[in-house]
Amino acid sequence: MTALGVRALRAAYRAGTLRPLTVVEDVLAHIASRGDDAVWISVTPAEVLRERAAELEGLDRALPLWGIPVAVKDNIDVAGLPTTAACPDFAYTPTADAGAVRRLREAGAIVVGKTNLDQFATGLNGTRSPYGAPESVYGGDLISGGSSSGSAVAVAAGIVPVALGTDTAGSGRVPAALNGIVGLKPTRGLVGASGVVPACRSLDCVSVFTRDLADAATVLDVLAGPDPDDPWSRADAPAAPGLRLAVPDGLELDPAVEARFAEVVEAAVTRADGFVRCDAAPLREAGDLLYGGPWVAERLAHLEDFLAGDGAVLPVTRAVIARGADFSAVDTFRAIYRLQELKAWAARLFETADVLLLPTVPTTFTRAQLTEDPVGRNLVLGRYTQFTNLLDLAAVAVPAGFTADGRPCGVTLFGPAFSETRLLTAAAALVPTPMEVA
Amino acid sequence: MTALGVRALRAAYRAGTLRPLTVVEDVLAHIASRGDDAVWISVTPAEVLRERAAELEGLDRALPLWGIPVAVKDNIDVAGLPTTAACPDFAYTPTADAGAVRRLREAGAIVVGKTNLDQFATGLNGTRSPYGAPESVYGGDLISGGSSSGSAVAVAAGIVPVALGTDTAGSGRVPAALNGIVGLKPTRGLVGASGVVPACRSLDCVSVFTRDLADAATVLDVLAGPDPDDPWSRADAPAAPGLRLAVPDGLELDPAVEARFAEVVEAAVTRADGFVRCDAAPLREAGDLLYGGPWVAERLAHLEDFLAGDGAVLPVTRAVIARGADFSAVDTFRAIYRLQELKAWAARLFETADVLLLPTVPTTFTRAQLTEDPVGRNLVLGRYTQFTNLLDLAAVAVPAGFTADGRPCGVTLFGPAFSETRLLTAAAALVPTPMEVA
Repeated sequence: MTALGVRALRAAYRAGTLRPLTVVEDVLAHIASRGDDAVWISVTPAEVLRERAAELEGLDRALPLWGIPVAVKDNIDVAGLPTTAACPDFAYTPTADAGAVRRLREAGAIVVGKTNLDQFATGLNGTRSPYGAPESVYGGDLISGGSSSGSAVAVAAGIVPVALGTDTAGSGRVPAALNGIVGLKPTRGLVGASGVVPACRSLDCVSVFTRDLADAATVLDVLAGPDPDDPWSRADAPAAPGLRLAVPDGLELDPAVEARFAEVVEAAVTRADGFVRCDAAPLREAGDLLYGGPWVAERLAHLEDFLAGDGAVLPVTRAVIARGADFSAVDTFRAIYRLQELKAWAARLFETADVLLLPTVPTTFTRAQLTEDPVGRNLVLGRYTQFTNLLDLAAVAVPAGFTADGRPCGVTLFGPAFSETRLLTAAAALVPTPMEVA
Repeated sequence: MTALGVRALRAAYRAGTLRPLTVVEDVLAHIASRGDDAVWISVTPAEVLRERAAELEGLDRALPLWGIPVAVKDNIDVAGLPTTAACPDFAYTPTADAGAVRRLREAGAIVVGKTNLDQFATGLNGTRSPYGAPESVYGGDLISGGSSSGSAVAVAAGIVPVALGTDTAGSGRVPAALNGIVGLKPTRGLVGASGVVPACRSLDCVSVFTRDLADAATVLDVLAGPDPDDPWSRADAPAAPGLRLAVPDGLELDPAVEARFAEVVEAAVTRADGFVRCDAAPLREAGDLLYGGPWVAERLAHLEDFLAGDGAVLPVTRAVIARGADFSAVDTFRAIYRLQELKAWAARLFETADVLLLPTVPTTFTRAQLTEDPVGRNLVLGRYTQFTNLLDLAAVAVPAGFTADGRPCGVTLFGPAFSETRLLTAAAALVPTPMEVA
């Protein structure tokens, strides 16, 4: 029954046909029945979950997430559960919840456990973890995508209706696309990032996985707001309404994704208030800065001491992060200057359009293919997600059907900072998939 | 007669008692009469100035700066005059005006010439130039302050009513304080910086010197707005009105400045809507990042190739800029993280106050004293200006009388980004000096 979304669960609670304890037992049974699916790094002890269910009976049932089970990516602190960031030697057990988790709990949520990820949230593929590589819910050995692999699969498989991820390069959208669910990457700073293991602190976002857009809007409403413990926290500003659509020319996609994306665009154009073409090159260039430019030093800034010790780190992860030492302050400011030019380009684009539409990923891979080329194929996955936080955009990844050869195909809608509510509405209006917003 | 301000000149033009040609001849005579005052690096040829005066007769006299002579700091491009940045070997002659200069000309201004500065705008004292060290208009061998030394003296000495400076660390405010004039440092990005030789491109501002606040408001109105050639250009957002005052505890000032500042605060408090004390330490810490942290690499990012050649550069300037090579990308992001915490502190401060009041400089020096300790005493001058752009504040420096021993004493009002209009009004209302805003 946890395959139900937030709205359906709340309706059943209101009707008195369901109680939180029943949901807790169902979630535990579901997790047990899946065996070693590599989704979870730790699960809240059953007795703690049952106590929470009992506690909820004494709380206000009007709370927006009353009795809703949630999963939390294991680079986000949950009091009493270890935070591993998929690196056992790095693990610590926090005594306080992350700011975002605290908001979920205060809204009545039940924190079920911590989910698998690409180590230190470095990777977009879901295979870089000593806790195993979750398979996409579509099977066929297809990758789950990452880095928020476990959270996406937990939602897509119907274990929980809501999961938190993080999204620096696309970690909250790539696995949404590859598991056919919604991945909302809010504006940087809209959701507080206190209690999150930093990847690139100036870019990191807490993200939301749900199975439909209405649930994403409900969860965002709970999460958004000032976080006094996060100096990158920013105030919300309302975005003007509008449905003028921009789609880039010159995308590099696999032919099957290209064909499906063309169908999506054709449908979206008929529903939009206007349509412009833009250049894809500035998006690619901005995205390439994340791993090819000095921002990779942000990963090292946080992990330098740990990497210098003898803790076990995956070779691919260590290699990616170590490149942060190759950049100087002069390199950094030169890259910031170029990025500022690209931000100015994006600002001009969003004067002519309200929503930018792109395929979330240009293709997908099997886990075996990823093992063959773990860095190159990871970069392919991030081709149209990595620019997002550098350009200070909000984004929502939604399912958009399948390629002709049966692989999942997602699209992402992008807008300027603080446009996420508009993007959720636009996704429901423009993307030819049965999704609605409350 | 150019000792007249903008309003008085415009009144005389309107009354028909003055013509631009008369003003041009007066300015040329004034410059000639002062001899080698180290204020100018180049002056527009007399025949070009006379042509401009004639051209203005055919233009709309309602233009806000019609017939107003202006000086431009020599790190800002003026078409046809060399841009030296006070380094002859660096010089080039631009064919186009900087964005800010173009706006001045389109508003009817007469560009009289290019003014002296601390080489590459690196310095706050006005003695670091192969073109000489202007003396403060108060004499006594006192430094003019810098880096916008020539622009400040040109206005203070009554040669021109308006001059452009730049202000990265305080270059638009320190010389205002030491010459008893107004120095307005607008919000970063409010005035376009295209055509300006970069110091720290992420922080550089074009600034305005005038003799009173009303003239500063008039010039700001001309300069503010989008600059399509400057990717750091930002849109204006109105600031809420308010006169709640904040003054830091624990300032480090010379005793004479401390005494005069106490008098200014006492008067300002009685005129303010509220008064809070704040801590000075976060301001000092943010300011120290500019030369003590990775932002010095921005200076090197622009000049690296030039410094590697055999062009003559002052030893002090070369030494300061070369330290930019000491910082890594990891250093840079760590400093950005600390700065973000300090920005969050400032945001909280401006929830409880509208205006922050500080002495512009903690003391002043003679040119002889600067020669004894060119780096240490320069840092003293920037103690309460350097944090401004790092914390993304607007600022206006105004005269506030003299110390008991007769040295000039200025104060600066600070507010959040885009609060400059409020700051001009607040300066007129709070500072006990006869200044008014139109």
